[in-house]
This record gives sequence, structure tokens and C-alpha cells, in this order.
Amino acid sequence: MGDFSHLNRTGDAALVDVSAKEATRRIATVEGKVTVSAACAAKLEDAAVAEIRSTARLAGLQAAKQTFQLIPLCHQIPLTRVDVDVGFQPAARTFAIRVTSEATAQTGVEMEALCAAQITGATIYDMIKAVDPSATVGPFHLAEKRGGKAGHWTRTEHQP
Amino acid sequence: MGDFSHLNRTGDAALVDVSAKEATRRIATVEGKVTVSAACAAKLEDAAVAEIRSTARLAGLQAAKQTFQLIPLCHQIPLTRVDVDVGFQPAARTFAIRVTSEATAQTGVEMEALCAAQITGATIYDMIKAVDPSATVGPFHLAEKRGGKAGHWTRTEHQP
Amino acid sequence: MGDFSHLNRTGDAALVDVSAKEATRRIATVEGKVTVSAACAAKLEDAAVAEIRSTARLAGLQAAKQTFQLIPLCHQIPLTRVDVDVGFQPAARTFAIRVTSEATAQTGVEMEALCAAQITGATIYDMIKAVDPSATVGPFHLAEKRGGKAGHWTRTEHQP
Amino acid sequence: MGDFSHLNRTGDAALVDVSAKEATRRIATVEGKVTVSAACAAKLEDAAVAEIRSTARLAGLQAAKQTFQLIPLCHQIPLTRVDVDVGFQPAARTFAIRVTSEATAQTGVEMEALCAAQITGATIYDMIKAVDPSATVGPFHLAEKRGGKAGHWTRTEHQP
Amino acid sequence: MGDFSHLNRTGDAALVDVSAKEATRRIATVEGKVTVSAACAAKLEDAAVAEIRSTARLAGLQAAKQTFQLIPLCHQIPLTRVDVDVGFQPAARTFAIRVTSEATAQTGVEMEALCAAQITGATIYDMIKAVDPSATVGPFHLAEKRGGKAGHWTRTEHQP
Amino acid sequence: MGDFSHLNRTGDAALVDVSAKEATRRIATVEGKVTVSAACAAKLEDAAVAEIRSTARLAGLQAAKQTFQLIPLCHQIPLTRVDVDVGFQPAARTFAIRVTSEATAQTGVEMEALCAAQITGATIYDMIKAVDPSATVGPFHLAEKRGGKAGHWTRTEHQP
Repeated sequence: MGDFSHLNRTGDAALVDVSAKEATRRIATVEGKVTVSAACAAKLEDAAVAEIRSTARLAGLQAAKQTFQLIPLCHQIPLTRVDVDVGFQPAARTFAIRVTSEATAQTGVEMEALCAAQITGATIYDMIKAVDPSATVGPFHLAEKRGGKAGHWTRTEHQP
Repeated sequence: MGDFSHLNRTGDAALVDVSAKEATRRIATVEGKVTVSAACAAKLEDAAVAEIRSTARLAGLQAAKQTFQLIPLCHQIPLTRVDVDVGFQPAARTFAIRVTSEATAQTGVEMEALCAAQITGATIYDMIKAVDPSATVGPFHLAEKRGGKAGHWTRTEHQP
Repeated sequence: MGDFSHLNRTGDAALVDVSAKEATRRIATVEGKVTVSAACAAKLEDAAVAEIRSTARLAGLQAAKQTFQLIPLCHQIPLTRVDVDVGFQPAARTFAIRVTSEATAQTGVEMEALCAAQITGATIYDMIKAVDPSATVGPFHLAEKRGGKAGHWTRTEHQP
Repeated sequence: MGDFSHLNRTGDAALVDVSAKEATRRIATVEGKVTVSAACAAKLEDAAVAEIRSTARLAGLQAAKQTFQLIPLCHQIPLTRVDVDVGFQPAARTFAIRVTSEATAQTGVEMEALCAAQITGATIYDMIKAVDPSATVGPFHLAEKRGGKAGHWTRTEHQP
Repeated sequence: MGDFSHLNRTGDAALVDVSAKEATRRIATVEGKVTVSAACAAKLEDAAVAEIRSTARLAGLQAAKQTFQLIPLCHQIPLTRVDVDVGFQPAARTFAIRVTSEATAQTGVEMEALCAAQITGATIYDMIKAVDPSATVGPFHLAEKRGGKAGHWTRTEHQP
Repeated sequence: MGDFSHLNRTGDAALVDVSAKEATRRIATVEGKVTVSAACAAKLEDAAVAEIRSTARLAGLQAAKQTFQLIPLCHQIPLTRVDVDVGFQPAARTFAIRVTSEATAQTGVEMEALCAAQITGATIYDMIKAVDPSATVGPFHLAEKRGGKAGHWTRTEHQP
């Protein structure tokens, strides 16, 4: 249906048929953040940040591998790399999240990076919500990807 | 550690011990959105929106039930309600997501609503990314919750 | 929508809200079968039947516990009993499957019994398909249930 | 044990060792149905059918990807295609289900198609069971498969 | 069959029927260890131990919640507490593992503690196996449990 | 960090990047045991042993396929072989467990064999714990592996 590849000829949601595509090297990077209140940021000592970061990174990593079960129209992709970076920037009251996923596959690995980044963010929120339930999780966006028809792609922000 | 309930006395990430807490009625509402480009919004005919919405709602609902497996420090909570609302607002180029979860439980259901909302958003992104890879997913925030020590809570935006 | 309880007021598929319902004792029995060819039945010696039966029973039991992840609109129900019976009837060339599930819950356990019975049947098929790929799996039907508004219910066959 | 490939030399249920087999293109189609009462069929307006169909198709698609976790002796197969077709035939009071799965793999993809078809059927039953608990799910059978030693195979019905 | 509660009257493996049992407070503690070579122990600096410990604790915690999917005859038990302790004892070249699980349930939580302890141990092994593939994981044993018919039980070592 | 391949340059737990590695044939064998009391061993008649063995073998096989979800730093590896052997040695009061896993992969399959062996052992414990709660599960060790840089490796016991 139009250019929406996950809608088939009859307009139904469908797994894209990748049977005839060759497996090539695919890389995707997703960025996002969790923003906390000034009061919460002030309470976040280094040891707490370290433990939150460590827990959230692992949750994100695990989520990347479960993407095919979370997103209905995603294929099972054997990931060869998942880098989950989490950094806390006190001045900006922000946990910055950056995930890169990679595989040799017949389709892209954007969703694996996005699921990992989102669950990383959700885990951070889980661990600070007793102090700051108003914290925001996201936004998340694809920053860059390589491989497939599009080749090397980097994001252009939407015009307002 | 401080007020971060998921860090125990030695600063380790830990499941909060809820053994001695009574199960009470818990409700949480999380809101979020997916913002697409003007070009993408223009291509989103009603039938496509309907199918995207339907697919994303189900993915979110399923994710709510898998929260205990996605978020390391979440308990297994038997949800009695999960409402996933998705509406497309063409003028704002936005899919608005709103999830309410409910359970009679010893701990809150915020994370169930957040996981559902995020995976709903990720599924929308998955279905429009061929047209608009630059779309943003989120931000997400807890809008309201009921039950537990805090009683009825509604969000106050962070001051800049 | 009409009497279809899984469609909400706007016609969307939805988890039934059971928040206000009391947990009561629920029991459901599902029956089904796998029918094999005469040639396959002849090859099924006792030892093979025993191993197929044992493997299929466990697969069914595991599936009962995963129902909430398999069926989008099912709640997470903590089962207190799952009986999976499998008997081979050589004359009828049939593996007869009968599953009873039980829980104290706010909603019924029919789907848990059905998922268990179906995966039991699928596992039997998996183990005999090299000999008889034409075998049929099913039909399955709810034979009986107890608990909830309907009380004790037993099946009436559809009139042709 | 005899020709039952999932029983090893000592008669134990076992994963078939496919280490030495070459990955080739595998396709399988499974057909099945859900039969409802005349009263239920009469209540099934187009909008309800559309929502049931859409929910059941996605449940089936997800199940295909989880086959290796549902069926003990199935390998993890990275599917490249899963087509789930569901059509309602009012006169026959029947939801007809047809699933085709495909992969380049060392073993067949029949079980992936069967699990998808069965969970599609179970989801349909879940959504109509408040109106028609006596509905039947199945039977299901492999209609056709391609690839592997057997080449192109189509089903022959069992002789009575 | 005899006193083996997971074998039913006909000797089949079966989920114990706990439908008529009352939910009471259950606690179980499992202990185990991972033993590494002297060379490996010498290389394990504090920072490495901290990261291994943190990763392994989370893996164990997650495994506790997945016990019902890992152990065929285990019920779905909503855990209210899972404490995973990991300590490295350089002189003994040993990672000591101790897990306590708790729930209000109709059956015990020993298996939840055992699964958590074993996956904690396996994750430690995973992270040191490049240096010491000969390391041993286990043994594990139930140290103590409370609740149920047996009341408070503490382990007695087997006589040789 | 040092030689611990799962700790990256900054000392964080990380999935090893195997993107540039070639897939080669990998085999791993893990051995372990469950030791029961003399009283328990005396009660274990052949039929009970057979049913325990059959249940535990399947649980182990299923666990092998779920390794990537259990062990945070494990990749998704499509296993082509999983042999789970369980033998009961009455004189030694021991269930001996031996698992061999195989795949063509960019990384080893030791963890798949270890997870399978451990869950096999845990399932045996689950089925005998009503009679012998003091039974020990493990130890487990890698006995042998083939493939990868190390080639053919067999275990050397740690020196005391």
C-alpha cells in the first residue's frame, strides 16, 4: 500500500518477504534520552548513576535480542553487535542513550537498536521514578544506518 | 541508596521487596507520541492509518504483559486492564499514544503502561520508516497514577 | 461491539477489563485429536507412542503457561492445575488429546486449555510427519467449563 | 527408531542433527479453519470480522517466530516470509486460515506454518467464544511444501 | 508414584494440582558457587569483579522470573522478593552465590531460587571463560526454606 | 579489560562484536550431575527414573534454544544439534548429565550446552525434591570444545 512496505497489496499488515534478498552488512544507530528534574539530578551520586547505567545497559542489550518478539512485523535477526552507551549529563539533567546494532541480514537492524534504546530508557526511568515520577523518556530517533538499498543514511531533522 | 528504591543498602540494583505490602488497586496512565514528516503524513491515508493503529495497539498490549521480562527490576504483575489508545492527528503529524494499565498488586503498574506505550510507538515507527526514517518516537511520560502510598498523582512538568 | 466481548465500544480489539470482577474457581476442558494414516499407525510401536506422548504432553503443559504471550487478548492467569492426557487409539488411527486447566481467576481458562491441546497436537504431528506428512491436527473444541457467570457449561454440537 | 526421525537410536525424543545438511529454500503451507454456529455467523458484521481477522493474523505471525520455543524438537529457523491469510465465509460459517512460511534452512518450515495457523485459529476462537463457546478450531493440515529431500510435495488425503 | 509428587497416579510427569491449597508465605534460599583457576583469580581485578557481579546478579534475577518457562512442572509464581548475592573470595578462587526468593503462593519457591542461582553462575562462567574455560559452575543446593507443610527446613548434608 | 572478552575497553559488560568473524563449525560438551541421598536412590524405580529422565532431557533441550535470552552477553545462535544425555547410576546415587551442542557460528556454543545441562539438572531436582530436598545440583564443567581460535580443547582440572 503506497510506500508503506509493511502493508501488503490488500492493505494488511504483513511481514515483508525478504526471501529473495541477499544478506548484507547492516548497521543502525539510535539515539534517545531520559530527562530528570533538577532535584533528581542533584540526588544522583556517582555510585547511583553507575548502578543505574549498568542495569539499563543490560536491559537494553537483552531487549535488542527480543525485538522479533516485541515488534510484530520484525524478522528474527541474529545480531553480531549491540553497543549500548549510556552517559549522564548533570547539567542537562539527562541520561543520553546511544545504541548501535549490527548484523549480516536480509533486512535492516533499526528496530533492534530502537527497542534496545527504549528499554534502556524505560529501565532508567524505573530506577529513578520513586524520586522523579515526572521524568520524560525519549524522544528516540534513528541517527544513522548503513547497508541495504539506501546505503549510508544519516538523519535530517523534520522541518517544522 | 538515598531515595532510589531500586538500589539496596549496598547500592546494588535490586528488586524491591514487596512481601509485606498489601495488594491494592493500582492504575497508571502513560502518554507519548510518534512524530512524522509532513510528506509522510500526507501519504497516510485512512486505511493505512487504521492498519498501523491496529498493529501497534496489539504490540503494545502484548508488551504490557511482558514487562517483567523486559525491565529487570519489575515484578510479575497480573494486569486486569490494559487500554491502548492510538490516534493520528494529521495537522500535528503525530500519532498520539495513551496507555492505561491496572492491577490489584503490591506495587505500581507504571512500567507496564510505559513498556506498552513505547512498543506501540516502536511498532508505528516500524511501519512508516520506509517512508520516513527520520520520524521521532517519544517522548513518553507518566501522566497520572492511582494507588499505593502516593494516592492519586498527576504529573507536573519539570521546570526548565 | 455486539456480544463480542473482546471488541470494545469503538470496535477495537481489547483486553476485557476484569478489574472489578472477583476471582473465582475456573475450570475448562478442551478435547482434540491428531489423525494419522493407516500406514503410520501400523508403524507406531508402543515405545514410539510412549515417547511421542511424553514429549507432546510436556509441550502442551508449557504452552498452557505461555497462553498470555500467544493470544493477544488473554490475561496472565496463574494456573493451579493443567492435566494433559494423550492416548493413542490404533483402530481409529487417532491420538486423543484432552486438557483440563484450572485457576482461581477473574476470567476463564478456556484459552489455556486450548493452547495446551493445540501445541500437544502440533508436537505429535512434528514427531510423525516424516512418516505421515498428510496427518491432520484437530479439530479442537471446548468440552466443558465451570465457574464465572455461565456456571457449569457443557458443549452442544452445532447443528448442521 | 523406525522412520520417526525425532526418535534417536535409543528411542529418545531428540532434536534431529542437521549440522551436516546444507541450507536450502524451504516453503510450507498449512490450512485450517474455525467453524462457528449459524447464530454466531449471523452476528459477525463486517467490522467485527475485520478486527478479529486483523488480531488473529498478527497472533499467528508472532507464533510462527516462536515455534522453536513452543515445539520441543524444532530448530531455531530465521523465517524470511510468513503469510497469514484469514477469510470469513458466512455461508460455510467458517474462518478459513492459510499460512505460508519460508526460509533458507537446513530443515523444513512446516511447524512454523502449523503453529501460526493454530494460534491464528485460537485467537479467532478467543474473540468469538463469548457468543459461541461450542465453535470448533481446526482441523489443520499441511497442504504443500517445497525444498529438502522430498522436493515439491502436495497433500493426499488419508483413505478412510 | 511413590513419594515423587511430580509423577501422577499413572507415573506421568505432571504439574502438581495445587487448586485446593491455600496461598501461604514461602521463602527459599539456594547456595552455589563458581570456582576458577588460580591464574584466573589473579587476573580478576576489583573493577572486573564488580562488572561480572553486576551482570550476573541481573541475569539471575531475570531467570527467577522465568522459572515457570524453564522448568516444565513449575507453576507461575508471582515473586515478591528475589535477593541475589554474589561475592568473590580470592583465596578460595570462588564466586559465592546465594539467592533468596519469596512469594505468597500455593507451592514453594525453591525452583525460582535454584534457577536464579544457576543462571547467575552461568553468567559468571560466560564472562571468565575466555581466561579459564576449565572453571566449574556449582554445585548448588537448597540451604533453607520456610512455609508449606514442612515449615522451617534447613539442609542436612547427605551422608557419604 | 585484560583478557576478559566480555568487558570492553571501558570495563563495561558488553556483547563481543563478532561482526567480522567468519562462521565456523562449533561444538561444545558440558558435563554435570545431580546427587541424591541413598534413601532417595532406593526409591527411584525404573519407571520413575524413565519419566524424570524424559522430562529433564526436554527441559534441557528447550533451555539450549533460550540461552540468548538467559545469558545477557550471549548471541542468538541457530543450533544444529543438541544432544542431552541423562543416565542414573544407582550405586553413585547420581544422575549424570552430558550435553553436546553444535552450530555453524561466529562464536562458541559452550553456554548453550551449559544452560541445557543446568536446566536438565534443575528439572531432575524439581522432580525428586519432595523426597530429597538436600540433593545437590552440579557441579557442571565444559568437558570439550571444537572450533574457533582454540581448535580442539579438552579440559584440564584445576590444580588444588
